[in-house]
Amino acid sequence: MLYEINEKALRLESEGKKIIRLNLGDPDMATPSEIVEAAYAALKAGKTKYSSSYGETKLRQKIAETHGVKAENVIITPGSKWAIFVTMFLMMKGGGNVIIPTPYWTAYELIAKSLGAKTKLLRTKMEDGWNIDISQLEEHIDNETKMIILNNPNNPTSKAMDSKTLDEVVAVANKKGITILSDEVYGAIAFNNTKSILDYEDDSKHILSNSFSKTFTMTGWRIGYIVADRTYIDQVVKLNQITFNNVPVFIQEAALKGMELHAQIATNIKAKYKARADLASSKLEEGGFKFTTPDAPFYVFPRRDGLDGTKFTLGLLDKGVAVAPGSSFGDYPDHIRISLTAPDDQIKVGLDKICEAALQ
Amino acid sequence: MLYEINEKALRLESEGKKIIRLNLGDPDMATPSEIVEAAYAALKAGKTKYSSSYGETKLRQKIAETHGVKAENVIITPGSKWAIFVTMFLMMKGGGNVIIPTPYWTAYELIAKSLGAKTKLLRTKMEDGWNIDISQLEEHIDNETKMIILNNPNNPTSKAMDSKTLDEVVAVANKKGITILSDEVYGAIAFNNTKSILDYEDDSKHILSNSFSKTFTMTGWRIGYIVADRTYIDQVVKLNQITFNNVPVFIQEAALKGMELHAQIATNIKAKYKARADLASSKLEEGGFKFTTPDAPFYVFPRRDGLDGTKFTLGLLDKGVAVAPGSSFGDYPDHIRISLTAPDDQIKVGLDKICEAALQ
Repeated sequence: MLYEINEKALRLESEGKKIIRLNLGDPDMATPSEIVEAAYAALKAGKTKYSSSYGETKLRQKIAETHGVKAENVIITPGSKWAIFVTMFLMMKGGGNVIIPTPYWTAYELIAKSLGAKTKLLRTKMEDGWNIDISQLEEHIDNETKMIILNNPNNPTSKAMDSKTLDEVVAVANKKGITILSDEVYGAIAFNNTKSILDYEDDSKHILSNSFSKTFTMTGWRIGYIVADRTYIDQVVKLNQITFNNVPVFIQEAALKGMELHAQIATNIKAKYKARADLASSKLEEGGFKFTTPDAPFYVFPRRDGLDGTKFTLGLLDKGVAVAPGSSFGDYPDHIRISLTAPDDQIKVGLDKICEAALQ
Repeated sequence: MLYEINEKALRLESEGKKIIRLNLGDPDMATPSEIVEAAYAALKAGKTKYSSSYGETKLRQKIAETHGVKAENVIITPGSKWAIFVTMFLMMKGGGNVIIPTPYWTAYELIAKSLGAKTKLLRTKMEDGWNIDISQLEEHIDNETKMIILNNPNNPTSKAMDSKTLDEVVAVANKKGITILSDEVYGAIAFNNTKSILDYEDDSKHILSNSFSKTFTMTGWRIGYIVADRTYIDQVVKLNQITFNNVPVFIQEAALKGMELHAQIATNIKAKYKARADLASSKLEEGGFKFTTPDAPFYVFPRRDGLDGTKFTLGLLDKGVAVAPGSSFGDYPDHIRISLTAPDDQIKVGLDKICEAALQ
């Protein structure tokens, strides 16, 4: 449904209709010009050749430094989606199942399905602050369970896991010998400090996937990375070598420039999205929606009792506002996901129209 | 061995040794500046967002025009390697085997292995002009055979298939209902016209994979494409969506600029490599090597009776010249592959050292 809504929005736009696009996690802001210039400088310097399937040493070192690991624990990927795909490809080869808490980013289940891996969805609820119920998690685990995917902070809820729950999930995973793949693409721009899977120093082999897309407004550049133990990185590189080979070096140099300016860029992004999240919160509250306050940029995932999210989304699109129905993220028919990734004035109009439509 | 030689060459260089690098198919020339400028213009125009997993319409149209197909038959990939991977991923899912003529590009077998697909290697010989023996091909085919991979012109031999043999291979494949994946990345810069898999108009579902790497000196940009029937393209897009999502739009715009300047760029590249191929031919002949005259840029794959290609390659590397041993391309122990992808003066010195070493 997520893709259909987007296609319909594009079609309406091509017919000349003005659509406020609050349906995708693609920021309205441009990539910072310093990053663009770094790419151009690298292009002019001839950094257009084949290169390492691990990624460039300088970038791996910088990432390693940020996360307190070694460069050998880091591998560069064409976006965090690749990190999810390759991890499932390698881990689920011989069958088994993966536990995915919902609401979830649709790609997790699509990837699992494409690889013939079984999924076990673990429902979390707004009333519980979207927290994972540990006893429920334990019930979901069986002898075939190989992985748990965490998305922290979460798309679509923008909820960061509280550190006690994360401690407990890690403890359960360690006890059962299950790998956690923690997708933390919104972590570096969360409004508050969020605990990472890398904060656990133990012998377990958990995996971090991360991206430059959200932190540096580089969605379309397709660059992300995995942090994991060295043995695992050496498995990933073998798959990189026979698929895309390497992320273009000039893109890696651009990403490195982004990291050098991280403090400044992340501060700007957080401030901008915090203001948008506050605006959305007050508007949606007035409109009678229930939701948890976003801990991170980009999304709000409000609910209204009795709402048919899909019908609502389609009707709203005819009124010129695109959002995503809750059913695109699991069994959440009375939710919608609003992406705060349009210019401020459009977000304001969009929110007003959403509230209006909900009251009709 | 290909990768080990390269790693050793890199290590020797990092120790300060001067190595003439004739071991990889990565051109010494820079990407034409018009292509670099087109990427920069697109970056500055904000073409840094998520985009279609099919690729940009303008680029697909231009490619379609070149090959006499429709845009819906074209999908953009991060290099031709991805085209090979995704095709085997989709076609070999339920098991079966793929026929690969040798000498072959190593990636074909590595990809098959990573997907658990069986390979049947079909040996071709220099004495037969590297032609496929059709009765041997028929013997290799069994009920489990799903695909034949052609690399035309071939890496490492630089031999283009003669059109009669290609006709026969296509006829056999059609009769048996087997898909041909034709990797034609050297086709557009071949020294003579080469028949393409797309020249066959029939109801068979053969697949072309191609790349911008070699034609436009864009190896490290990672962009290629598949041409196939629409049903197949729609299967590929689903895998693109859950892996790398899209090739960066600014890279697609750069590739489009390359295509607009195709005549000029390809003419330059062909002339340069033709001169190198002629030089290599005369030097290697003097040196007592046997080989077929290259039909396409980049490689010569000479043999010398009694040569131990691996030992020779390692010894040569200590003398400052990196080539690839024949065993990296199948059962060709007395061959070596020389890549003519270094500056002219280096190629000259490299060839002299190769001949010297062979005579010792």
